[in-house]
Formats: sequence, structure tokens, C-alpha cells
Amino acid sequence: MTDKVQLLGISNAIVDVLAHVDNAFLDSIGAPLGSMTLIDENQAHDIYSRMGPATEMSGGSVANTIAGFANLGGATAYIGKVRDDQFGEIFNHDMRSLGVDIRLEPATSGTPTARCHVLITEGGQRTMQTYLGACLELALADITLSTVGAPKALLLEGYVWDIAEGPALAKKAAEIARANGTAVSLSLSDSFCVERHRASFLDFVQNDADIVVADEEEIHALLGTDNIETAVRDLATYEALFAVTRSAQGSVIVHGDTVIEQEAAFVKNVVDTTGAGDAYSAGFLYGWANGRSLTECAKYGTRCATKVIQQVGARVEKGLLDGFQ
Amino acid sequence: MTDKVQLLGISNAIVDVLAHVDNAFLDSIGAPLGSMTLIDENQAHDIYSRMGPATEMSGGSVANTIAGFANLGGATAYIGKVRDDQFGEIFNHDMRSLGVDIRLEPATSGTPTARCHVLITEGGQRTMQTYLGACLELALADITLSTVGAPKALLLEGYVWDIAEGPALAKKAAEIARANGTAVSLSLSDSFCVERHRASFLDFVQNDADIVVADEEEIHALLGTDNIETAVRDLATYEALFAVTRSAQGSVIVHGDTVIEQEAAFVKNVVDTTGAGDAYSAGFLYGWANGRSLTECAKYGTRCATKVIQQVGARVEKGLLDGFQ
Repeated sequence: MTDKVQLLGISNAIVDVLAHVDNAFLDSIGAPLGSMTLIDENQAHDIYSRMGPATEMSGGSVANTIAGFANLGGATAYIGKVRDDQFGEIFNHDMRSLGVDIRLEPATSGTPTARCHVLITEGGQRTMQTYLGACLELALADITLSTVGAPKALLLEGYVWDIAEGPALAKKAAEIARANGTAVSLSLSDSFCVERHRASFLDFVQNDADIVVADEEEIHALLGTDNIETAVRDLATYEALFAVTRSAQGSVIVHGDTVIEQEAAFVKNVVDTTGAGDAYSAGFLYGWANGRSLTECAKYGTRCATKVIQQVGARVEKGLLDGFQ
Repeated sequence: MTDKVQLLGISNAIVDVLAHVDNAFLDSIGAPLGSMTLIDENQAHDIYSRMGPATEMSGGSVANTIAGFANLGGATAYIGKVRDDQFGEIFNHDMRSLGVDIRLEPATSGTPTARCHVLITEGGQRTMQTYLGACLELALADITLSTVGAPKALLLEGYVWDIAEGPALAKKAAEIARANGTAVSLSLSDSFCVERHRASFLDFVQNDADIVVADEEEIHALLGTDNIETAVRDLATYEALFAVTRSAQGSVIVHGDTVIEQEAAFVKNVVDTTGAGDAYSAGFLYGWANGRSLTECAKYGTRCATKVIQQVGARVEKGLLDGFQ
């Protein structure tokens, strides 16, 4: 009894503010290279006032995946909280223009729409400083039979657990999904996020998730492992399907005894790694939702990630798989 | 008696909303390829709702020139009107982060900060649909001895004449400039703008402007000429210094009997022509403000324009002359 939506995202709705910086800038704000730090409104103002000229684009990890899935031609819907301000307008516009069905109205009061300061350093590495703003007001009451519907799959992100009602609303979404035959997928977001919520994530992966997308560090943070072989053996004991990205080492898909290794594509010039994992998830889940083999799903994921790291920003304007299919 | 500012801009403060579209999209909104159309708030909502996912970056013609001039290391200041909204924050941040001294506070009421929908089609051509919003509230009262100061030069744009008090405030700025030994420069903005205000522009060029930057069509619209040779002969009868850009045919500098022709650089892949003329003006005026020969000024202008058309957006993040000097 699924509706026509193939993938519903539930996540933090964020506008990215992207600028190139040097390593000295990261030192000056105490940000480790490649980290994602949650900051408050004052810190956001401070960092922004010290950054150079920036470009603004819609972002948010699972939101990027939903945009990518829609870019590939899939039917999508989205639950996330923005304010009725200009950043909220940008976020919703960019989703809607791809055909994404936005399920919540913008908040008419409270803190502004979230922004993520994406600091791009040499070699395309990105360090993120995120002000969650309106995202923190996503509430249990926003997750209902009507807002969730009966999509083929839903996709939650680990960052939702940083919201006060996040763990509860994730459980509620999973319950609605189970009743409707919707597959529950989870993106682990980042290894620090996994460390913040490890027990709850382990429970969710064990009891609620049908599909888990993550990078290798996130999996190690979750399982307490330190090498891919051990991690794969551990993942094989779960019922869920796992897609684990490993940067230049490609990705590995684990589903019980089935283990599929997928090489990364060679990229001569990595411009900006922002959104690589999100794009992989889009390709992988698009393949899955369309009944492709796991090997094909992994190839789709790899191709989408390969495309996104060759440009600035987390979303490819159009044709995420162009040149491949 | 000039202060340390080399170039003060007075212009429309705009955030660009950039997206790739096809020619059918331009047809559907009735926009001629390459045109700039002024639209109202309802039209802005309509166009935005029909556009694909976009990227937001600070823009505005003379504002781009000021940003470029600051990018080159010049001391700059700026007078333009934004609202105290998120687009206004983006605009002012991007200027300030380059060291531009912002002379006006954001408006605390009235219409939102201006946005220009930049529709990029094949071959990097751009068509613009501009909602002027808060820009229309720039007033005579904003132009004072204290906001203008005594820079080496000021730069007005033709688009200022589209504001109710625009012609009057341009005259007032020119008077303050004359009293302080500040050179008055004018960018003609676009040929339709010249047609809208031709008599007033001719008067200003004759009586107020020391330097005029324009493209060939704008000059033809101003003079009623239809070929470059006739136009150059006409321009030679004015006292002002003219820098006329001609796209792939390069540029020509005219100052009385002095005529300097500058070739364009060959560019294999034009990504987006947005801001080409603005970048030329930045390079040209930077050379002029630093006492370079007119031949060198034209080379600087050409190099800056060459750089900006090889990327999306009107502003180069850093090093506008990198690789040349």
C-alpha cells in the first residue's frame, strides 16, 4: 500500500554558505579540518563576519540526497523545518523546482532558517560550521500519517537526533513506515554525530532500519571497529542492508552474507567534496527503489558522487547521471 | 583633497539568483535573449517559482565593479540601499568581507532587498529579470558630504536613473565630487536603460562625467550611431574619457584625439558572461586610479573580464588578476 512517492526525506533543512578559506582561517576559529560543528546564532554571526565573499545554495545532508534522487527522475517528498524568511524561501524553492513535495509549511515565528558555513580548503576538503536555527523546532507533531504518507522508502539522517524531539520523531516515522510497508533508511550523518547518539543509533539500526547509508568512519564509530574487514563481519550480523562509502577506496555493500565491493572512479581534480556522500546515497537508493541489483545500486551511487565532487556545492544542477547512462 | 578611498560606487544593491535555463524558458516568460527587464514583486515570484534550483550570489552592476576593484587591492566604498533581510545581509557581508566601506544602513521597513534572476543559456549568455525592491528607495537624502566623502573617483550606474530620485541624486553626487576634486565616472548599464534616459544621460556625460564606461550598443544608443568608427569620432568631441567594450572584438578607449584599441583574449569555453563589463570597469578604473597608462588600463580591464566569463557569477572569489600580473 505505498503511494507514488519513492523516497521521503526527514532531515535538517539548511542553506549552505560556501566560501574558500585557507587553513589558517580554520585554525583561527578552532575548527579541525573536515569536521562538522554545531554553533549558536552568535557564533554564526562571528564566523560569517570573518568569512570572505560567499555563495549561497540549498544544502542539508539528506535534503541533498532527496534533491539528487529527484534530479535522477525519482518521485520524492520532504519533511524539514524552515522559517518564513528568504533562506527558507530559497530552500523550499530549490526542492519544489525539482518536483519534491514539501510536506511542512514554513514556521511563522521563532529562529531563522538554518545555515551551514561550508569552508572549502585546498584539494576540495570542506569543514562545516552549522547553525541549526529553525531545524531545532522540528517536532513529533510534524510526523503524522498525513505528512509521512506511504512512500516506498523514507530516509532519516543522524543529525535529526540533535533535535530535542528528534529521537522520538524518528521512532514515530519508523512506526508509520512499518504500518504502511515503507522501508526505513538512515544516513548516519557524521562520526561525531554517531558518537553523540551511539546507543540510540544502535537501537534504531537493530530494530527500525532496513537500509543504512554511512561512510567508513561513521560505521567504525557505531560499531567500535577500526578496520573495514571487522566492520563488514559485524554488519553481516544485522538484518539491515548497509552501503558504506570509503572515499577514494570506493564503497562496500553488506547485506547479511552478501558483500559487494565497488571501486571509486578516478577524479583528476576534486573541486569540493561537499555532498559526495549525499549524492552516493541518492544514486544508491534510486537504484534500490527501481529494483536494480545491489551491484548496480553501488555503481549509481559512485557515479553520482563522482559528479558532485567535480563542482562547487552539494547539488548538481541537472543530470546527476548524465554521461553515464 | 581626496580621502584614502580610490573608488566609491553609487548603484543598485542586488543579490543575483542564478540558474541555467533553456531558450524555451525565455520564450515562456517573453524575455528576449540577453535582455535586462525590470519586473515587479508579483512577476518576481512568478519567475522564481518557474525557475529550477538556483545559486545566490551578490550582484548589481557597479556593485560588482566595486567588489572587483576591492578584489584587486583598491580602497573602496559603497552607497546602495538594501533592506534588513537575509539578502541584504548577504549583499553587505560580501562587500565588507572585501574591505568595502558600506556607507548606508539597511532599511528597517519597506520592500525587500533587490534580486536579479539571472537566466543562463547555452554558450554562457545571460538574460536578466530584475526586481529592484529596496533599491527604489535610494534617496537624495542618502547622498551627503559625509556619505560621499572625497574619494579619488566615484562611479554611478545608469540603472540609478530608474529610481525616482535617481537623476537628482546623481547630480548631487557629481556636485559634491566636483567640490572635492573627485572624478565622476558613469557606467551606462545597458542599451535599453540608455534609451529610457537618453536626454538626461547626454546631459550628464556632457556636463558631469569625467569617465564613461559602456559597451558598444550602449554608446550607439546614446549617440544614435550604428558603427564603431562614427561613434569614436563622436566620442572624441566630448571632454570625458570613454572606455567602450565590444565583446569578442575587444575594447576601445577614446579621450579626445587619443584612441586606443585593445584586443579581447581568446576564451575557449565561455561559461557565463554575467559581469564581464563590470569586471572590465574594475580593471580599467583600478589602472586609472593607480596612474597607469590608458593602454595598461585597457589591458587590466580585458584581463578581469576574461577571468569572470570563465566561471558562473559576476564576481571572482579572489585574485581577479591572478595569472596575469
